[in-house]
Amino acid sequence: MNAELTSFLTETKEQVEKRLPQVFENLSIPETLVEAMIYSLNAGGKRIRPALLLGTIQSFGKPMESGLDVACAIEMIHTYSLIHDDLPAMDDDDMRRGKPTNHKVYGEALAILAGDALLTYSFELITQLDREDISTEQKLLLVQEISKAAGPEGMVGGQVADIEGENRSLSLDELVYIHQHKTGDLLTAAIVSGAIIAGASKDDIANLRMFAKELGLMFQIKDDILDVEGDQDLIGKPIGSDDGNNKSTYPNLLGLEGAKKKLNEHMSNAKEYLYKVKMNHGLLLTLTNYVAERDH
Amino acid sequence: MNAELTSFLTETKEQVEKRLPQVFENLSIPETLVEAMIYSLNAGGKRIRPALLLGTIQSFGKPMESGLDVACAIEMIHTYSLIHDDLPAMDDDDMRRGKPTNHKVYGEALAILAGDALLTYSFELITQLDREDISTEQKLLLVQEISKAAGPEGMVGGQVADIEGENRSLSLDELVYIHQHKTGDLLTAAIVSGAIIAGASKDDIANLRMFAKELGLMFQIKDDILDVEGDQDLIGKPIGSDDGNNKSTYPNLLGLEGAKKKLNEHMSNAKEYLYKVKMNHGLLLTLTNYVAERDH
Repeated sequence: MNAELTSFLTETKEQVEKRLPQVFENLSIPETLVEAMIYSLNAGGKRIRPALLLGTIQSFGKPMESGLDVACAIEMIHTYSLIHDDLPAMDDDDMRRGKPTNHKVYGEALAILAGDALLTYSFELITQLDREDISTEQKLLLVQEISKAAGPEGMVGGQVADIEGENRSLSLDELVYIHQHKTGDLLTAAIVSGAIIAGASKDDIANLRMFAKELGLMFQIKDDILDVEGDQDLIGKPIGSDDGNNKSTYPNLLGLEGAKKKLNEHMSNAKEYLYKVKMNHGLLLTLTNYVAERDH
Repeated sequence: MNAELTSFLTETKEQVEKRLPQVFENLSIPETLVEAMIYSLNAGGKRIRPALLLGTIQSFGKPMESGLDVACAIEMIHTYSLIHDDLPAMDDDDMRRGKPTNHKVYGEALAILAGDALLTYSFELITQLDREDISTEQKLLLVQEISKAAGPEGMVGGQVADIEGENRSLSLDELVYIHQHKTGDLLTAAIVSGAIIAGASKDDIANLRMFAKELGLMFQIKDDILDVEGDQDLIGKPIGSDDGNNKSTYPNLLGLEGAKKKLNEHMSNAKEYLYKVKMNHGLLLTLTNYVAERDH
Protein backbone atom coordinates (compact mmCIF):
# COMPACT_ATOMS: atom_id res chain seq x y z
CA MET A 1 0.00 0.00 0.00
CA ASN A 2 1.05 3.54 -0.74
CA ALA A 3 2.93 4.99 2.27
CA GLU A 4 0.80 8.13 2.46
CA LEU A 5 -2.39 6.02 2.55
CA THR A 6 -0.96 3.63 5.15
CA SER A 7 -0.02 6.43 7.49
CA PHE A 8 -3.39 8.15 6.99
CA LEU A 9 -5.28 4.93 7.84
CA THR A 10 -3.08 4.31 10.88
CA GLU A 11 -3.53 7.85 12.15
CA THR A 12 -7.33 7.95 11.78
CA LYS A 13 -7.69 4.45 13.30
CA GLU A 14 -5.76 5.60 16.37
CA GLN A 15 -7.83 8.78 16.72
CA VAL A 16 -11.13 6.92 16.47
CA GLU A 17 -10.10 4.11 18.82
CA LYS A 18 -8.98 6.66 21.40
CA ARG A 19 -12.22 8.63 21.11
CA LEU A 20 -14.75 5.77 21.01
CA PRO A 21 -14.82 4.85 24.74
CA GLN A 22 -14.64 8.54 25.74
CA VAL A 23 -18.08 9.32 24.31
CA PHE A 24 -19.70 7.17 27.02
CA GLU A 25 -17.72 8.64 29.89
CA ASN A 26 -20.25 10.98 31.45
CA LEU A 27 -23.30 8.84 30.82
CA SER A 28 -25.37 6.95 33.35
CA ILE A 29 -25.64 3.49 31.76
CA PRO A 30 -25.93 0.10 33.53
CA GLU A 31 -22.40 -1.23 33.86
CA THR A 32 -22.81 -4.49 31.97
CA LEU A 33 -24.52 -2.68 29.09
CA VAL A 34 -21.76 -0.15 28.54
CA GLU A 35 -19.19 -2.96 28.96
CA ALA A 36 -20.88 -5.01 26.23
CA MET A 37 -21.06 -1.97 23.94
CA ILE A 38 -17.40 -1.09 24.43
CA TYR A 39 -16.31 -4.75 24.12
CA SER A 40 -17.43 -4.86 20.51
CA LEU A 41 -16.33 -1.30 19.71
CA ASN A 42 -12.85 -2.30 20.93
CA ALA A 43 -12.79 -5.48 18.86
CA GLY A 44 -10.67 -3.88 16.16
CA GLY A 45 -11.29 -3.78 12.45
CA LYS A 46 -9.88 -1.46 9.83
CA ARG A 47 -12.08 1.52 10.81
CA ILE A 48 -12.57 2.13 7.09
CA ARG A 49 -15.81 4.12 7.51
CA PRO A 50 -14.24 6.63 9.91
CA ALA A 51 -11.23 6.88 7.57
CA LEU A 52 -13.48 7.66 4.60
CA LEU A 53 -15.35 10.32 6.58
CA LEU A 54 -12.24 11.97 7.98
CA GLY A 55 -10.37 11.65 4.66
CA THR A 56 -13.18 13.45 2.86
CA ILE A 57 -13.08 16.32 5.35
CA GLN A 58 -9.30 16.58 4.96
CA SER A 59 -9.61 16.55 1.16
CA PHE A 60 -11.79 19.66 1.42
CA GLY A 61 -9.02 21.31 3.44
CA LYS A 62 -11.00 21.27 6.69
CA PRO A 63 -9.82 20.01 10.12
CA MET A 64 -10.50 16.29 10.53
CA GLU A 65 -11.16 16.82 14.23
CA SER A 66 -14.56 18.34 13.40
CA GLY A 67 -15.75 14.94 12.15
CA LEU A 68 -14.37 12.70 14.89
CA ASP A 69 -17.63 12.16 16.81
CA VAL A 70 -19.65 11.55 13.65
CA ALA A 71 -16.98 9.04 12.58
CA CYS A 72 -17.48 7.34 15.95
CA ALA A 73 -21.26 7.35 15.44
CA ILE A 74 -20.92 5.59 12.08
CA GLU A 75 -18.48 3.06 13.57
CA MET A 76 -21.07 2.39 16.31
CA ILE A 77 -23.70 1.63 13.67
CA HIS A 78 -21.28 -0.68 11.84
CA THR A 79 -20.50 -2.40 15.17
CA TYR A 80 -24.19 -2.82 16.07
CA SER A 81 -24.77 -4.46 12.68
CA LEU A 82 -21.93 -6.94 13.33
CA ILE A 83 -23.27 -7.80 16.81
CA HIS A 84 -26.75 -8.52 15.43
CA ASP A 85 -25.38 -10.36 12.35
CA ASP A 86 -23.37 -12.69 14.59
CA LEU A 87 -26.41 -13.75 16.67
CA PRO A 88 -27.45 -17.44 16.60
CA ALA A 89 -30.65 -16.51 14.72
CA MET A 90 -28.58 -14.82 12.00
CA ASP A 91 -25.06 -16.01 11.04
CA ASP A 92 -24.47 -17.81 14.36
CA ASP A 93 -20.79 -16.85 14.59
CA ASP A 94 -18.82 -17.64 17.73
CA MET A 95 -15.71 -15.67 16.80
CA ARG A 96 -15.01 -12.34 15.10
CA ARG A 97 -11.51 -10.99 14.50
CA GLY A 98 -10.05 -13.64 16.80
CA LYS A 99 -12.27 -12.75 19.77
CA PRO A 100 -15.50 -14.38 20.98
CA THR A 101 -18.55 -12.60 19.57
CA ASN A 102 -20.63 -10.36 21.82
CA HIS A 103 -23.35 -12.94 22.57
CA LYS A 104 -20.74 -15.58 23.44
CA VAL A 105 -19.40 -13.27 26.15
CA TYR A 106 -22.53 -11.46 27.38
CA GLY A 107 -25.38 -13.75 26.31
CA GLU A 108 -27.92 -13.22 23.56
CA ALA A 109 -30.24 -10.86 25.43
CA LEU A 110 -27.49 -8.41 26.29
CA ALA A 111 -25.97 -8.68 22.79
CA ILE A 112 -29.30 -7.71 21.22
CA LEU A 113 -29.63 -4.80 23.66
CA ALA A 114 -26.00 -3.67 23.22
CA GLY A 115 -26.65 -3.49 19.46
CA ASP A 116 -29.88 -1.55 20.02
CA ALA A 117 -28.09 0.83 22.36
CA LEU A 118 -25.18 1.49 19.96
CA LEU A 119 -27.60 2.23 17.11
CA THR A 120 -29.75 4.57 19.20
CA TYR A 121 -26.84 6.34 20.85
CA SER A 122 -25.17 7.04 17.50
CA PHE A 123 -28.01 9.43 16.63
CA GLU A 124 -28.02 11.04 20.06
CA LEU A 125 -24.28 11.65 19.76
CA ILE A 126 -24.74 13.53 16.47
CA THR A 127 -27.50 15.75 17.89
CA GLN A 128 -25.24 16.61 20.82
CA LEU A 129 -22.26 17.78 18.78
CA ASP A 130 -21.17 21.00 20.38
CA ARG A 131 -18.96 22.62 17.75
CA GLU A 132 -19.15 26.10 16.30
CA ASP A 133 -18.22 24.77 12.86
CA ILE A 134 -21.24 22.44 12.61
CA SER A 135 -24.67 24.08 12.32
CA THR A 136 -28.06 22.73 13.38
CA GLU A 137 -28.88 22.28 9.70
CA GLN A 138 -25.73 20.19 9.18
CA LYS A 139 -26.47 18.01 12.21
CA LEU A 140 -29.98 17.30 10.93
CA LEU A 141 -28.59 16.44 7.48
CA LEU A 142 -26.13 14.03 9.12
CA VAL A 143 -28.87 12.24 11.07
CA GLN A 144 -30.96 12.04 7.89
CA GLU A 145 -28.12 10.72 5.73
CA ILE A 146 -26.97 8.13 8.25
CA SER A 147 -30.41 6.91 9.35
CA LYS A 148 -31.45 6.44 5.73
CA ALA A 149 -28.26 4.50 4.96
CA ALA A 150 -28.65 2.27 8.03
CA GLY A 151 -32.41 1.69 7.83
CA PRO A 152 -34.92 -0.42 5.91
CA GLU A 153 -34.01 1.09 2.52
CA GLY A 154 -30.32 0.73 3.33
CA MET A 155 -28.26 -1.63 5.44
CA VAL A 156 -31.14 -3.50 7.09
CA GLY A 157 -32.84 -3.95 3.70
CA GLY A 158 -29.60 -5.32 2.24
CA GLN A 159 -29.23 -7.75 5.14
CA VAL A 160 -32.79 -9.03 4.61
CA ALA A 161 -32.14 -9.49 0.87
CA ASP A 162 -28.90 -11.32 1.69
CA ILE A 163 -30.68 -13.73 4.06
CA GLU A 164 -33.44 -14.33 1.53
CA GLY A 165 -30.90 -14.98 -1.23
CA GLU A 166 -28.98 -17.63 0.70
CA ASN A 167 -28.70 -21.04 -0.89
CA ARG A 168 -30.02 -20.00 -4.27
CA SER A 169 -28.42 -18.43 -7.34
CA LEU A 170 -28.80 -14.68 -7.61
CA SER A 171 -29.11 -12.52 -10.72
CA LEU A 172 -26.52 -9.78 -11.19
CA ASP A 173 -29.17 -7.20 -10.19
CA GLU A 174 -29.89 -9.04 -6.96
CA LEU A 175 -26.17 -9.34 -6.18
CA VAL A 176 -25.66 -5.62 -6.76
CA TYR A 177 -28.71 -4.79 -4.62
CA ILE A 178 -27.34 -6.78 -1.68
CA HIS A 179 -23.84 -5.28 -1.85
CA GLN A 180 -25.04 -1.74 -2.40
CA HIS A 181 -27.33 -1.78 0.59
CA LYS A 182 -25.75 -4.24 3.03
CA THR A 183 -22.33 -2.59 2.93
CA GLY A 184 -22.32 0.14 0.29
CA ASP A 185 -24.87 2.51 1.79
CA LEU A 186 -23.02 3.03 5.08
CA LEU A 187 -19.69 3.51 3.24
CA THR A 188 -21.43 6.10 1.08
CA ALA A 189 -22.94 7.76 4.17
CA ALA A 190 -19.44 8.04 5.66
CA ILE A 191 -18.12 9.93 2.62
CA VAL A 192 -21.24 12.08 2.27
CA SER A 193 -21.14 12.88 6.00
CA GLY A 194 -17.56 14.07 5.61
CA ALA A 195 -18.71 16.33 2.78
CA ILE A 196 -21.63 17.67 4.85
CA ILE A 197 -19.30 18.48 7.75
CA ALA A 198 -16.84 20.16 5.38
CA GLY A 199 -19.68 22.36 4.10
CA ALA A 200 -19.47 21.02 0.53
CA SER A 201 -21.88 22.26 -2.13
CA LYS A 202 -24.90 20.21 -3.22
CA ASP A 203 -23.21 19.37 -6.51
CA ASP A 204 -20.04 18.20 -4.78
CA ILE A 205 -22.10 16.06 -2.41
CA ALA A 206 -24.03 14.53 -5.31
CA ASN A 207 -20.82 13.64 -7.16
CA LEU A 208 -19.18 12.23 -4.05
CA ARG A 209 -22.27 10.10 -3.46
CA MET A 210 -21.88 8.60 -6.95
CA PHE A 211 -18.12 8.19 -6.41
CA ALA A 212 -18.79 6.33 -3.15
CA LYS A 213 -21.27 3.97 -4.80
CA GLU A 214 -18.75 3.05 -7.49
CA LEU A 215 -16.03 2.60 -4.88
CA GLY A 216 -18.22 0.27 -2.81
CA LEU A 217 -18.96 -1.92 -5.82
CA MET A 218 -15.26 -1.96 -6.78
CA PHE A 219 -14.41 -3.16 -3.31
CA GLN A 220 -16.84 -6.08 -3.50
CA ILE A 221 -15.88 -7.15 -7.04
CA LYS A 222 -12.19 -7.10 -6.09
CA ASP A 223 -12.97 -9.24 -3.02
CA ASP A 224 -14.67 -11.79 -5.27
CA ILE A 225 -11.75 -11.77 -7.73
CA LEU A 226 -9.21 -12.24 -4.93
CA ASP A 227 -11.20 -15.24 -3.75
CA VAL A 228 -10.59 -16.87 -7.15
CA GLU A 229 -7.00 -15.91 -7.84
CA GLY A 230 -5.59 -14.37 -4.69
CA ASP A 231 -2.79 -15.66 -2.46
CA GLN A 232 -4.42 -17.72 0.28
CA ASP A 233 -1.87 -16.61 2.88
CA LEU A 234 -2.48 -12.95 2.09
CA ILE A 235 -6.28 -12.92 2.04
CA GLY A 236 -6.63 -15.08 5.12
CA LYS A 237 -9.19 -17.60 3.91
CA PRO A 238 -9.01 -20.58 1.55
CA ILE A 239 -9.02 -19.66 -2.13
CA GLY A 240 -12.27 -20.68 -3.75
CA SER A 241 -14.17 -20.65 -0.46
CA ASP A 242 -16.98 -18.70 -2.15
CA ASP A 243 -17.54 -21.61 -4.59
CA GLY A 244 -19.31 -23.64 -1.95
CA ASN A 245 -22.94 -23.36 -0.85
CA ASN A 246 -24.14 -21.87 -4.14
CA LYS A 247 -22.62 -18.51 -3.36
CA SER A 248 -23.28 -15.92 -6.05
CA THR A 249 -20.19 -13.87 -6.90
CA TYR A 250 -19.17 -11.58 -9.75
CA PRO A 251 -16.74 -14.15 -11.25
CA ASN A 252 -19.43 -16.86 -11.04
CA LEU A 253 -21.95 -14.63 -12.81
CA LEU A 254 -19.65 -12.82 -15.30
CA GLY A 255 -16.59 -15.07 -15.57
CA LEU A 256 -13.21 -13.96 -14.21
CA GLU A 257 -12.42 -11.73 -17.19
CA GLY A 258 -15.92 -10.26 -17.12
CA ALA A 259 -15.52 -9.44 -13.43
CA LYS A 260 -12.17 -7.72 -14.09
CA LYS A 261 -13.73 -5.70 -16.89
CA LYS A 262 -16.57 -4.70 -14.55
CA LEU A 263 -14.04 -3.64 -11.89
CA ASN A 264 -12.30 -1.39 -14.42
CA GLU A 265 -15.59 0.14 -15.54
CA HIS A 266 -16.48 1.03 -11.97
CA MET A 267 -12.98 2.43 -11.36
CA SER A 268 -13.24 4.62 -14.40
CA ASN A 269 -16.70 5.83 -13.31
CA ALA A 270 -15.45 6.46 -9.77
CA LYS A 271 -12.60 8.66 -10.98
CA GLU A 272 -14.86 10.54 -13.35
CA TYR A 273 -17.19 11.48 -10.48
CA LEU A 274 -14.29 12.27 -8.17
CA TYR A 275 -12.66 14.70 -10.62
CA LYS A 276 -15.89 16.73 -10.76
CA VAL A 277 -15.61 17.53 -7.04
CA LYS A 278 -13.86 20.75 -6.01
CA MET A 279 -11.43 19.23 -3.53
CA ASN A 280 -7.89 17.89 -3.29
CA HIS A 281 -8.31 14.54 -5.08
CA GLY A 282 -5.02 12.92 -3.99
CA LEU A 283 -6.11 10.84 -1.02
CA LEU A 284 -9.38 9.48 -2.43
CA LEU A 285 -7.65 8.78 -5.76
CA THR A 286 -4.90 6.82 -4.03
CA LEU A 287 -7.58 4.91 -2.15
CA THR A 288 -9.47 4.15 -5.38
CA ASN A 289 -6.34 2.77 -7.03
CA TYR A 290 -5.53 0.75 -3.94
CA VAL A 291 -8.99 -0.87 -3.87
CA ALA A 292 -8.50 -2.09 -7.46
CA GLU A 293 -4.87 -3.15 -7.14
CA ARG A 294 -4.62 -4.63 -3.63
CA ASP A 295 -3.54 -8.26 -3.35
CA HIS A 296 -5.50 -9.00 -0.13
CA MET B 1 -63.53 6.80 31.97
CA ASN B 2 -64.43 10.42 31.42
CA ALA B 3 -66.28 10.77 28.09
CA GLU B 4 -64.03 13.56 26.82
CA LEU B 5 -60.93 11.45 27.50
CA THR B 6 -62.46 8.36 25.88
CA SER B 7 -63.31 10.20 22.71
CA PHE B 8 -59.90 11.85 22.60
CA LEU B 9 -58.11 8.49 22.93
CA THR B 10 -60.34 6.91 20.28
CA GLU B 11 -59.79 9.77 17.87
CA THR B 12 -55.98 9.88 18.20
CA LYS B 13 -55.74 6.07 18.00
CA GLU B 14 -57.64 6.13 14.71
CA GLN B 15 -55.47 8.91 13.28
CA VAL B 16 -52.23 7.17 14.19
CA GLU B 17 -53.36 3.75 12.96
CA LYS B 18 -54.40 5.26 9.65
CA ARG B 19 -51.12 7.12 9.25
CA LEU B 20 -48.68 4.39 10.35
CA PRO B 21 -48.66 2.22 7.19
CA GLN B 22 -48.72 5.33 4.97
CA VAL B 23 -45.26 6.46 6.04
CA PHE B 24 -43.71 3.45 4.26
CA GLU B 25 -45.68 3.88 1.04
CA ASN B 26 -43.07 5.44 -1.22
CA LEU B 27 -40.09 3.57 0.14
CA SER B 28 -38.12 0.85 -1.56
CA ILE B 29 -37.93 -1.84 1.15
CA PRO B 30 -37.75 -5.63 0.67
CA GLU B 31 -41.33 -6.88 0.79
CA THR B 32 -41.01 -9.30 3.71
CA LEU B 33 -39.23 -6.65 5.80
CA VAL B 34 -41.91 -4.01 5.41
CA GLU B 35 -44.56 -6.70 5.98
CA ALA B 36 -42.92 -7.72 9.27
CA MET B 37 -42.63 -4.08 10.34
CA ILE B 38 -46.28 -3.31 9.56
CA TYR B 39 -47.48 -6.60 11.13
CA SER B 40 -46.34 -5.47 14.56
CA LEU B 41 -47.33 -1.83 14.05
CA ASN B 42 -50.84 -3.08 13.24
CA ALA B 43 -51.00 -5.34 16.27
CA GLY B 44 -53.04 -2.83 18.26
CA GLY B 45 -52.41 -1.45 21.70
CA LYS B 46 -53.73 1.68 23.34
CA ARG B 47 -51.43 4.06 21.40
CA ILE B 48 -50.91 5.90 24.67
CA ARG B 49 -47.59 7.52 23.59
CA PRO B 50 -49.10 9.10 20.46
CA ALA B 51 -52.09 10.23 22.53
CA LEU B 52 -49.79 11.93 25.07
CA LEU B 53 -47.86 13.67 22.30
CA LEU B 54 -50.93 14.83 20.39
CA GLY B 55 -52.78 15.74 23.59
CA THR B 56 -49.91 17.97 24.68
CA ILE B 57 -49.94 19.80 21.34
CA GLN B 58 -53.70 20.31 21.60
CA SER B 59 -53.37 21.58 25.18
CA PHE B 60 -51.09 24.34 23.86
CA GLY B 61 -53.83 25.26 21.36
CA LYS B 62 -51.86 24.02 18.34
CA PRO B 63 -53.10 21.69 15.56
CA MET B 64 -52.53 18.03 16.46
CA GLU B 65 -51.87 17.21 12.83
CA SER B 66 -48.42 18.82 13.09
CA GLY B 67 -47.34 16.04 15.45
CA LEU B 68 -48.80 13.04 13.66
CA ASP B 69 -45.58 11.76 12.08
CA VAL B 70 -43.56 12.22 15.27
CA ALA B 71 -46.30 10.34 17.13
CA CYS B 72 -45.88 7.55 14.57
CA ALA B 73 -42.09 7.62 15.06
CA ILE B 74 -42.47 7.16 18.83
CA GLU B 75 -44.99 4.35 18.30
CA MET B 76 -42.44 2.67 15.98
CA ILE B 77 -39.83 2.80 18.74
CA HIS B 78 -42.30 1.36 21.24
CA THR B 79 -43.15 -1.40 18.73
CA TYR B 80 -39.48 -2.22 18.04
CA SER B 81 -38.94 -2.59 21.81
CA LEU B 82 -41.86 -5.04 22.05
CA ILE B 83 -40.57 -7.12 19.09
CA HIS B 84 -37.11 -7.42 20.65
CA ASP B 85 -38.53 -8.03 24.18
CA ASP B 86 -40.61 -10.92 22.87
CA LEU B 87 -37.62 -12.74 21.31
CA PRO B 88 -36.68 -16.20 22.66
CA ALA B 89 -33.45 -14.77 24.12
CA MET B 90 -35.45 -12.18 26.07
CA ASP B 91 -39.02 -12.85 27.37
CA ASP B 92 -39.69 -15.68 24.87
CA ASP B 93 -43.33 -14.75 24.31
CA ASP B 94 -45.36 -16.52 21.61
CA MET B 95 -48.40 -14.25 21.79
CA ARG B 96 -48.99 -10.53 22.24
CA ARG B 97 -52.42 -8.93 22.30
CA GLY B 98 -53.98 -12.16 21.04
CA LYS B 99 -51.74 -12.44 17.98
CA PRO B 100 -48.57 -14.51 17.43
CA THR B 101 -45.47 -12.44 18.15
CA ASN B 102 -43.32 -11.19 15.27
CA HIS B 103 -40.69 -13.94 15.46
CA LYS B 104 -43.38 -16.65 15.57
CA VAL B 105 -44.66 -15.39 12.22
CA TYR B 106 -41.48 -14.21 10.45
CA GLY B 107 -38.72 -16.08 12.28
CA GLU B 108 -36.14 -14.69 14.68
CA ALA B 109 -33.76 -13.21 12.11
CA LEU B 110 -36.43 -11.12 10.43
CA ALA B 111 -37.93 -10.11 13.80
CA ILE B 112 -34.56 -8.76 14.95
CA LEU B 113 -34.16 -6.89 11.66
CA ALA B 114 -37.74 -5.57 11.65
CA GLY B 115 -37.06 -4.12 15.10
CA ASP B 116 -33.78 -2.60 13.94
CA ALA B 117 -35.52 -1.12 10.90
CA LEU B 118 -38.38 0.42 12.91
CA LEU B 119 -35.93 2.04 15.31
CA THR B 120 -33.71 3.44 12.57
CA TYR B 121 -36.58 4.60 10.39
CA SER B 122 -38.20 6.49 13.27
CA PHE B 123 -35.28 8.93 13.27
CA GLU B 124 -35.26 9.25 9.49
CA LEU B 125 -38.97 10.05 9.54
CA ILE B 126 -38.44 12.93 11.96
CA THR B 127 -35.61 14.43 9.87
CA GLN B 128 -37.86 14.29 6.81
CA LEU B 129 -40.79 16.18 8.30
CA ASP B 130 -41.79 18.68 5.68
CA ARG B 131 -43.93 21.18 7.56
CA GLU B 132 -43.62 24.94 7.70
CA ASP B 133 -44.58 24.93 11.38
CA ILE B 134 -41.61 22.75 12.44
CA SER B 135 -38.14 24.26 12.15
CA THR B 136 -34.80 22.53 11.66
CA GLU B 137 -33.98 23.36 15.28
CA GLN B 138 -37.19 21.68 16.47
CA LYS B 139 -36.53 18.57 14.40
CA LEU B 140 -33.04 18.23 15.87
CA LEU B 141 -34.43 18.68 19.40
CA LEU B 142 -36.97 15.94 18.68
CA VAL B 143 -34.30 13.48 17.51
CA GLN B 144 -32.21 14.34 20.56
CA GLU B 145 -35.07 13.96 23.04
CA ILE B 146 -36.33 10.69 21.57
CA SER B 147 -32.93 9.05 20.98
CA LYS B 148 -31.89 9.84 24.55
CA ALA B 149 -35.13 8.38 25.92
CA ALA B 150 -34.82 5.22 23.82
CA GLY B 151 -31.08 4.64 24.23
CA PRO B 152 -28.62 3.26 26.79
CA GLU B 153 -29.46 5.87 29.43
CA GLY B 154 -33.17 5.38 28.77
CA MET B 155 -35.33 2.48 27.59
CA VAL B 156 -32.50 0.07 26.73
CA GLY B 157 -30.80 0.77 30.07
CA GLY B 158 -34.08 0.09 31.90
CA GLN B 159 -34.54 -3.17 30.03
CA VAL B 160 -31.02 -4.30 31.00
CA ALA B 161 -31.66 -3.41 34.66
CA ASP B 162 -34.97 -5.30 34.51
CA ILE B 163 -33.27 -8.45 33.15
CA GLU B 164 -30.52 -8.21 35.75
CA GLY B 165 -33.06 -7.77 38.54
CA GLU B 166 -35.08 -10.88 37.65
CA ASN B 167 -35.46 -13.51 40.34
CA ARG B 168 -34.10 -11.39 43.14
CA SER B 169 -35.61 -8.80 45.47
CA LEU B 170 -35.13 -5.19 44.43
CA SER B 171 -34.75 -2.11 46.56
CA LEU B 172 -37.23 0.71 46.02
CA ASP B 173 -34.51 2.70 44.21
CA GLU B 174 -33.86 -0.18 41.82
CA LEU B 175 -37.59 -0.62 41.18
CA VAL B 176 -37.98 3.09 40.43
CA TYR B 177 -34.92 3.02 38.12
CA ILE B 178 -36.36 0.17 36.06
CA HIS B 179 -39.81 1.73 35.68
CA GLN B 180 -38.50 5.22 34.97
CA HIS B 181 -36.23 4.06 32.19
CA LYS B 182 -37.90 0.96 30.76
CA THR B 183 -41.27 2.64 30.26
CA GLY B 184 -41.17 6.12 31.79
CA ASP B 185 -38.58 7.74 29.56
CA LEU B 186 -40.42 7.14 26.29
CA LEU B 187 -43.71 8.33 27.82
CA THR B 188 -41.88 11.46 28.96
CA ALA B 189 -40.34 11.90 25.49
CA ALA B 190 -43.84 11.74 23.98
CA ILE B 191 -45.08 14.60 26.17
CA VAL B 192 -41.90 16.65 25.75
CA SER B 193 -41.99 16.09 21.98
CA GLY B 194 -45.52 17.46 21.90
CA ALA B 195 -44.29 20.53 23.78
CA ILE B 196 -41.34 20.97 21.38
CA ILE B 197 -43.67 20.79 18.37
CA ALA B 198 -46.06 23.27 19.99
CA GLY B 199 -43.16 25.68 20.44
CA ALA B 200 -43.37 25.67 24.25
CA SER B 201 -40.91 27.70 26.32
CA LYS B 202 -37.95 26.07 28.07
CA ASP B 203 -39.66 26.49 31.45
CA ASP B 204 -42.85 24.89 30.23
CA ILE B 205 -40.89 21.99 28.76
CA ALA B 206 -38.98 21.51 32.02
CA ASN B 207 -42.20 21.43 34.06
CA LEU B 208 -43.91 19.07 31.62
CA ARG B 209 -40.89 16.77 31.83
CA MET B 210 -41.30 16.60 35.61
CA PHE B 211 -45.08 16.14 35.24
CA ALA B 212 -44.49 13.24 32.84
CA LYS B 213 -42.07 11.52 35.22
CA GLU B 214 -44.60 11.69 38.05
CA LEU B 215 -47.36 10.44 35.76
CA GLY B 216 -45.26 7.46 34.63
CA LEU B 217 -44.56 6.44 38.23
CA MET B 218 -48.26 6.87 39.12
CA PHE B 219 -49.16 4.56 36.28
CA GLN B 220 -46.82 1.82 37.50
CA ILE B 221 -47.80 2.08 41.17
CA LYS B 222 -51.49 1.92 40.26
CA ASP B 223 -50.80 -1.18 38.13
CA ASP B 224 -49.17 -2.84 41.12
CA ILE B 225 -52.07 -1.85 43.41
CA LEU B 226 -54.65 -3.20 40.95
CA ASP B 227 -52.75 -6.47 40.91
CA VAL B 228 -53.39 -6.79 44.65
CA GLU B 229 -56.97 -5.55 44.96
CA GLY B 230 -58.33 -5.16 41.46
CA ASP B 231 -61.16 -7.07 39.83
CA GLN B 232 -59.62 -10.01 37.99
CA ASP B 233 -62.16 -9.82 35.15
CA LEU B 234 -61.44 -6.13 34.60
CA ILE B 235 -57.65 -6.20 34.67
CA GLY B 236 -57.41 -9.35 32.54
CA LYS B 237 -54.88 -11.31 34.60
CA PRO B 238 -55.15 -13.26 37.86
CA ILE B 239 -55.06 -11.09 40.98
CA GLY B 240 -51.81 -11.56 42.84
CA SER B 241 -49.95 -12.78 39.75
CA ASP B 242 -47.09 -10.44 40.64
CA ASP B 243 -46.61 -12.33 43.93
CA GLY B 244 -44.91 -15.22 42.15
CA ASN B 245 -41.27 -15.46 41.06
CA ASN B 246 -39.99 -12.97 43.61
CA LYS B 247 -41.42 -10.03 41.73
CA SER B 248 -40.68 -6.70 43.36
CA THR B 249 -43.70 -4.39 43.42
CA TYR B 250 -44.64 -1.23 45.29
CA PRO B 251 -47.15 -3.02 47.58
CA ASN B 252 -44.54 -5.71 48.34
CA LEU B 253 -41.97 -3.08 49.25
CA LEU B 254 -44.18 -0.45 50.92
CA GLY B 255 -47.30 -2.37 51.93
CA LEU B 256 -50.65 -1.69 50.26
CA GLU B 257 -51.37 1.45 52.25
CA GLY B 258 -47.81 2.69 51.70
CA ALA B 259 -48.21 2.19 47.96
CA LYS B 260 -51.48 4.13 47.94
CA LYS B 261 -49.86 6.95 49.87
CA LYS B 262 -46.98 6.98 47.35
CA LEU B 263 -49.48 7.12 44.49
CA ASN B 264 -51.16 10.16 46.04
CA GLU B 265 -47.82 11.88 46.59
CA HIS B 266 -46.91 11.44 42.94
CA MET B 267 -50.37 12.63 41.85
CA SER B 268 -50.02 15.73 43.94
CA ASN B 269 -46.53 16.41 42.51
CA ALA B 270 -47.78 15.78 38.98
CA LYS B 271 -50.55 18.34 39.32
CA GLU B 272 -48.23 20.88 40.89
CA TYR B 273 -45.88 20.69 37.89
CA LEU B 274 -48.77 20.71 35.43
CA TYR B 275 -50.32 23.87 36.86
CA LYS B 276 -47.04 25.72 36.30
CA VAL B 277 -47.30 25.18 32.54
CA LYS B 278 -48.94 27.89 30.45
CA MET B 279 -51.43 25.68 28.63
CA ASN B 280 -55.01 24.45 28.87
CA HIS B 281 -54.70 21.91 31.71
CA GLY B 282 -58.05 20.14 31.22
CA LEU B 283 -57.03 17.11 29.18
CA LEU B 284 -53.82 16.23 31.02
CA LEU B 285 -55.54 16.80 34.37
CA THR B 286 -58.35 14.44 33.41
CA LEU B 287 -55.73 11.90 32.33
CA THR B 288 -53.86 12.26 35.63
CA ASN B 289 -57.03 11.65 37.65
CA TYR B 290 -57.89 8.70 35.45
CA VAL B 291 -54.51 7.05 35.98
CA ALA B 292 -55.02 7.18 39.77
CA GLU B 293 -58.69 6.19 39.81
CA ARG B 294 -58.99 3.60 37.06
CA ASP B 295 -60.21 0.12 38.01
CA HIS B 296 -58.29 -1.76 35.28
